[in-house]
Amino acid sequence: MTRIVYVNGAYRPETEAKVSVFDRGFLFADAVYEVTAVIGGKLIDFPGHCARLRRSLAELGLPSPATDDEILAIHRELVSRNALELGHVYLMVTRGEADRDFVFPKADTPPSFVLFTQRRDAIETREAEQGLKVASVPDLRWGRRDIKTVQLLYPSMAKMEAKRKGKDDAWFVENGTVTEGTSNNAYIVTHDGAIRTRALGHDILHGITRAALLKVAGELGLHVEERPFTIEEAQGAREAFVTSAGAFVTPVVEIDDVAVGDGRPGPIARRLRAAYLDVAIAEAL
Amino acid sequence: MTRIVYVNGAYRPETEAKVSVFDRGFLFADAVYEVTAVIGGKLIDFPGHCARLRRSLAELGLPSPATDDEILAIHRELVSRNALELGHVYLMVTRGEADRDFVFPKADTPPSFVLFTQRRDAIETREAEQGLKVASVPDLRWGRRDIKTVQLLYPSMAKMEAKRKGKDDAWFVENGTVTEGTSNNAYIVTHDGAIRTRALGHDILHGITRAALLKVAGELGLHVEERPFTIEEAQGAREAFVTSAGAFVTPVVEIDDVAVGDGRPGPIARRLRAAYLDVAIAEAL
Repeated sequence: MTRIVYVNGAYRPETEAKVSVFDRGFLFADAVYEVTAVIGGKLIDFPGHCARLRRSLAELGLPSPATDDEILAIHRELVSRNALELGHVYLMVTRGEADRDFVFPKADTPPSFVLFTQRRDAIETREAEQGLKVASVPDLRWGRRDIKTVQLLYPSMAKMEAKRKGKDDAWFVENGTVTEGTSNNAYIVTHDGAIRTRALGHDILHGITRAALLKVAGELGLHVEERPFTIEEAQGAREAFVTSAGAFVTPVVEIDDVAVGDGRPGPIARRLRAAYLDVAIAEAL
Repeated sequence: MTRIVYVNGAYRPETEAKVSVFDRGFLFADAVYEVTAVIGGKLIDFPGHCARLRRSLAELGLPSPATDDEILAIHRELVSRNALELGHVYLMVTRGEADRDFVFPKADTPPSFVLFTQRRDAIETREAEQGLKVASVPDLRWGRRDIKTVQLLYPSMAKMEAKRKGKDDAWFVENGTVTEGTSNNAYIVTHDGAIRTRALGHDILHGITRAALLKVAGELGLHVEERPFTIEEAQGAREAFVTSAGAFVTPVVEIDDVAVGDGRPGPIARRLRAAYLDVAIAEAL
């Protein structure tokens, strides 16, 4: 089956899904995105992703491509046309098409709006069963990681660096502490049983799954500390894990060649994953 | 006249110059670029731009889209087809088209290769005559500015911030010193008559015009100091200027609301501009 992709108002076969070479998403990475998980054909945390999209657009002065209801309808249409049961919907908004100039184009330039689906079994994964091995890399990204832009070259390079070392993913380290993973927020479980993760700011993405996870953790009676941790603290922690819209809650079992705990997914990460998925599926749209 | 654009082996009208939404240049800013000036229909500093392109490709493990001779031929064909006398040729190489994944696609994925012309009188400009007013902004870009990637959102935002303040451009400041401008290298002329500019490293672009300018300055008997300067040092300097492939050598006459020298383009910047253009035009291909 050929995938059907949404591009600026039209549903097209993926081979015909194109944008101008003058699109500012292509020439300047002047674009933001969201990834919304799909389970059983329904959208996970959709209101959260829509709210974060609005924030990213506002931070960059990007025009809105559609109302929330319209965005929801496009998601549902793509899920339906592609018979997507399990996977996610990728959404991207750019500042539109204009001759190349560092100066933004006229304010009435229509934004480009692209969405497509990706089929992926993010539930029964090797990573969820066995946990991730991560390698630390210096965090060389730009200073506004709270805005979900497509400036993803360095995270992609970091992921490749981790793969070259035989690991699954990379954790970024800045000024001695972990910021986050290449496409996920990072956590440890301390020996007191508390969940520790970096506080929100300009240095990390404001994860939608992060917000949901912290809520679930609170409901399970777990203490949450929003402050940074070092690689050494993570290596010596009881457990470690990451969260993302693509992989939900996934245990981390090794950091820079050092096993975390007994080197297997820990009970708290497993419990959080199950509890998160229960809530997320119950609230799916 | 409709501009003719080069896209992956074909010369197309600009309205038909498109790339897939799955192009990694679009989804990940996984792409590098060059801008080569054209004067009198000839290419300025072409070997330098080609050499820097090779370096950018190598740093990112991007495949080469063509030989140097082929790239030169495409430049000339575009200049000819668009009857370009004065302006520049923009060139971009991406890691090609692949379903979205932080992991790089297979090594044999063909790179995308896009070139287009822009007509611009970069010689008789208001900026060259009157000089630029610049505003400083914090340098929030990623840590490898020596690789000429299309991750240009922040420079574009900085340029807009300068415009909002009624200025022409922005200078980035990091750890107390100027790194460079949004799309140019920055210089001051000290009271001793020396040309001072930041040394090459990961924090600035290795400007092709910068290299040519420093050579010309040496030939004119000017002392060159490759070390950083502060905004205060620049404000108190005898002169200030920037260099880029798009604007050659352009005087800076005001920095953060403070006039540099007497607030008019200085004699050394004017002399360097003229001398640079003489050499560049003489060596144009």
